[in-house]
Amino acid sequence: MDSKQFKEAAASAIDEIANYYDTIEDRRVVSDVEPGYLKKLLPNGPPQEGEPWADIQKDIESKIMPGLTHWQSPNFMAFFPSNSTFPSMLGELYSAAFTAPAFNWICSPAVTELETVVLDWLAKLFNLPECYLSTSHGGGVIQGSASEAVVTVVVAARDKYLRETTSHLSGLELEDAIAHKRSRMVALGSESSHSSTQKAAQIAGVRYRSIPAPKETGYTINGAALEEVLKECKAQGLEPFYLTTTLGTTSTCSVDDFASIASTLSKYAPPNVPGEIWVHVDAAYAGAALVCPEYQHLTASFEHFHSFNMNMHKWLLTNFDASCLFIRKRKDLIDALSIMPSYLRNEFSESGLVTDYRDWQIPLGRRFRSLKIWFVLRTYGVKGLQEFVRKHIKLGEFFARLLKTRPDLFEIITGPSFALTVFNVVPRTGGKAEQDKLTQDVYELVNKRGEIYITSTVIGGVYAIRVVSANERAEEKFLQKAFNILVSTAEEVRNGQASQSNVNEVIKDVKGVGEVAVLSANGSAS
Amino acid sequence: MDSKQFKEAAASAIDEIANYYDTIEDRRVVSDVEPGYLKKLLPNGPPQEGEPWADIQKDIESKIMPGLTHWQSPNFMAFFPSNSTFPSMLGELYSAAFTAPAFNWICSPAVTELETVVLDWLAKLFNLPECYLSTSHGGGVIQGSASEAVVTVVVAARDKYLRETTSHLSGLELEDAIAHKRSRMVALGSESSHSSTQKAAQIAGVRYRSIPAPKETGYTINGAALEEVLKECKAQGLEPFYLTTTLGTTSTCSVDDFASIASTLSKYAPPNVPGEIWVHVDAAYAGAALVCPEYQHLTASFEHFHSFNMNMHKWLLTNFDASCLFIRKRKDLIDALSIMPSYLRNEFSESGLVTDYRDWQIPLGRRFRSLKIWFVLRTYGVKGLQEFVRKHIKLGEFFARLLKTRPDLFEIITGPSFALTVFNVVPRTGGKAEQDKLTQDVYELVNKRGEIYITSTVIGGVYAIRVVSANERAEEKFLQKAFNILVSTAEEVRNGQASQSNVNEVIKDVKGVGEVAVLSANGSAS
Repeated sequence: MDSKQFKEAAASAIDEIANYYDTIEDRRVVSDVEPGYLKKLLPNGPPQEGEPWADIQKDIESKIMPGLTHWQSPNFMAFFPSNSTFPSMLGELYSAAFTAPAFNWICSPAVTELETVVLDWLAKLFNLPECYLSTSHGGGVIQGSASEAVVTVVVAARDKYLRETTSHLSGLELEDAIAHKRSRMVALGSESSHSSTQKAAQIAGVRYRSIPAPKETGYTINGAALEEVLKECKAQGLEPFYLTTTLGTTSTCSVDDFASIASTLSKYAPPNVPGEIWVHVDAAYAGAALVCPEYQHLTASFEHFHSFNMNMHKWLLTNFDASCLFIRKRKDLIDALSIMPSYLRNEFSESGLVTDYRDWQIPLGRRFRSLKIWFVLRTYGVKGLQEFVRKHIKLGEFFARLLKTRPDLFEIITGPSFALTVFNVVPRTGGKAEQDKLTQDVYELVNKRGEIYITSTVIGGVYAIRVVSANERAEEKFLQKAFNILVSTAEEVRNGQASQSNVNEVIKDVKGVGEVAVLSANGSAS
Repeated sequence: MDSKQFKEAAASAIDEIANYYDTIEDRRVVSDVEPGYLKKLLPNGPPQEGEPWADIQKDIESKIMPGLTHWQSPNFMAFFPSNSTFPSMLGELYSAAFTAPAFNWICSPAVTELETVVLDWLAKLFNLPECYLSTSHGGGVIQGSASEAVVTVVVAARDKYLRETTSHLSGLELEDAIAHKRSRMVALGSESSHSSTQKAAQIAGVRYRSIPAPKETGYTINGAALEEVLKECKAQGLEPFYLTTTLGTTSTCSVDDFASIASTLSKYAPPNVPGEIWVHVDAAYAGAALVCPEYQHLTASFEHFHSFNMNMHKWLLTNFDASCLFIRKRKDLIDALSIMPSYLRNEFSESGLVTDYRDWQIPLGRRFRSLKIWFVLRTYGVKGLQEFVRKHIKLGEFFARLLKTRPDLFEIITGPSFALTVFNVVPRTGGKAEQDKLTQDVYELVNKRGEIYITSTVIGGVYAIRVVSANERAEEKFLQKAFNILVSTAEEVRNGQASQSNVNEVIKDVKGVGEVAVLSANGSAS
């Protein structure tokens, strides 16, 4: 494909994409293909001779499109949003054109430097304490996902803890102490934390323990709950070294009590003292709301914590992946992830003259992801971003108001919180078991029909439906439609008009692909 | 930006990118900005009001372009190539448009299914044994980078080893055994392995030891060298559980002796027996050559190994990132990386009906990267890929022949191997120290002047220059030019015509950004 052919191919691709976005609401939002559908449509191997672009492009509509779930559709209200926008796509396009596996500064200096600039912009925009800026001892780095960010900080926290608590030892004594500690170290999360902390502990080779986050505290953790678990750990000879705390949990968008957590830690594992507990704030989705001053009080305790992560690729208009990890002391990351001897490192990296982001992350190479963030920030401007977030907050309130018009049918469990409302369906008779069953049946029938796409969860032992509408095409009328669908489906199922065999079939279909159980368990704080 | 504005903006972006590629050889290949250049050019934060695309695009040429190193320039002969091509860019564009953090099948079934299909295509194209296909017990998965793939398999190998060697224990005894083993476990690489194995060991919390790869064996390892290290480890009470072996090392593109390695392991750590050593083949760059039948004998021993990785994003026309990891037993990955209880997992994932790639990788979310591989395979066809690889093999031979015309000036150390030639400069008088100094001075002056961009390395203790020209715009005339530059610079430096102060200044400049030392150490097997 020469540059002339590229211009033609690209023009055709751009037309197709623009048209896709203009008509996206007409497509079934969730794919209904059978597992294995695509293999049947494709040959057994690549062609021997090259094919013209027109032949390739044709297959997008006919073969790929049926297998897509349309996250940009206004009928998508599942998981959390994963916004993609036109300026962001242009960023991705330029990034591909300027391809460099930018594992160090000279590979393509602009890749490193633009990242430092836009992440400092974001840190200020989110009202993070100054310690998270590159101009201080911290800084931001773009990771692929919130889950990758969690692994990165768990590994950094593990090594920092081991190093600092054994610095007085040497030789065999040091080796024994490290072996013993490794087997006793515990990463903590809350019951409401995203499962990525548990996975990170598995990867880092340490234990994981979750702190109860019951209904009484709004499914959040606070200093008292943390204190209890710290005492338990101590009694069992375990050594907590890390905690994930959440701003906007996956199930309900609850926010942990940061101030009391900081206060408990100042007693049990004082910051800046060997043995301190690394606190990571997972704000993967809801962190976006920090662009609005009315949410910025939430960062008040962050100066006592160690790292903060939010995904531009969820709510903030930038296509996946663009997960922004901010760190209070970049040295903590570099100590764990650089393989350059420290005497070489201090001379250059610590000077702040050149940032080697490969030492801030697990992989070596990296893409030019700051371009798309830069394009998005400039295209929308700060006011545009605030407007965007506030629009969805209002849509969430609108939807909750609708639910409240039918207390006979729906019971709100939490929210709206950051545009997410969690609720269940009220059975005509019966208790919790009936309510769970009814809610699940309604949920599954709605998704099976695929006019809207929603997610379920289990919160405080209760089966519930989550609705969050926060992509660029979201509007009141789509939430009104969603509500109407939920009302009619709930009535249909509750009245037994959806025949049991129909419901059973749905359940079989959906379970058959092994996914539904997983959705709830894994959420979408990717 | 609405869809009409997007079409206009995209047309303008596409024109700029096409023109960039058409004129890329006229740009200085390596950026000569000063560290911190970009911050001075940009405001302190994003604008309050959104800006039109035209204003944003203007800044690409004026602010970003000076800070780019142009990996697609035919004057780029450094590291390994990082090809990007037009069909691949279109793949990235569609991937952004269809954004879904596809952490499970239903998130967007086509994302999972196309990946399975094209990775099976590739496995067959590379002549991998059938066990690496998804239709067997293995399969392929796209990772972000070869280094990420190494971390992934080291973690899987670690957990498999711990699980299998302690399966007869329980309770406190099990806990003690695991703690003890963790402190004794060693991941092995060779002196020529990419540094990512050492970093992976650091992340997984295990030891790392490298196997000597001396000049005598062509900077490779074989069964005998492995045997020696295994015996040493045993004598020291250490437990090797993992080995990276390389097809195309970073410094010289040497290939380890796979057959003798397999044979040694069959004696010391027999495959499929608890305690076996996981062997990973790192073919990040040179693996691309396996599209040509003349290289396919190299895969003969792979059925005895556990995983294989090659980067489509190096030599094979697909923009970064597209690192293809093939695994012999997918269960080994899933056991380490899934957080779903195994009783749930077996029912669905093991059925092969639905693949949950989140359990094959460290992060949870994933992009639609198979699209660009699919576009590239179809646009070029198998013959096009073979032609592409063979063209560079020939260019490497051409360049080596040029070097050989000046034995008074250049001494080839290795190659050409997979298009890479490694050589140093012959001093008029003096021994190794003078030769190292002269070679380094020539290397640094060439890069300082920036007409071509090359990399240095230290191999067998000798300072050397690496030249590899393998991107889409590579041609004989550019290698001829590179040779002419090397000749004139070598003569200039050797004759003292480049004043010592000039050379010193160069060295200071280049070292000032802390990079040169790092380049050699880290290579580019990203």
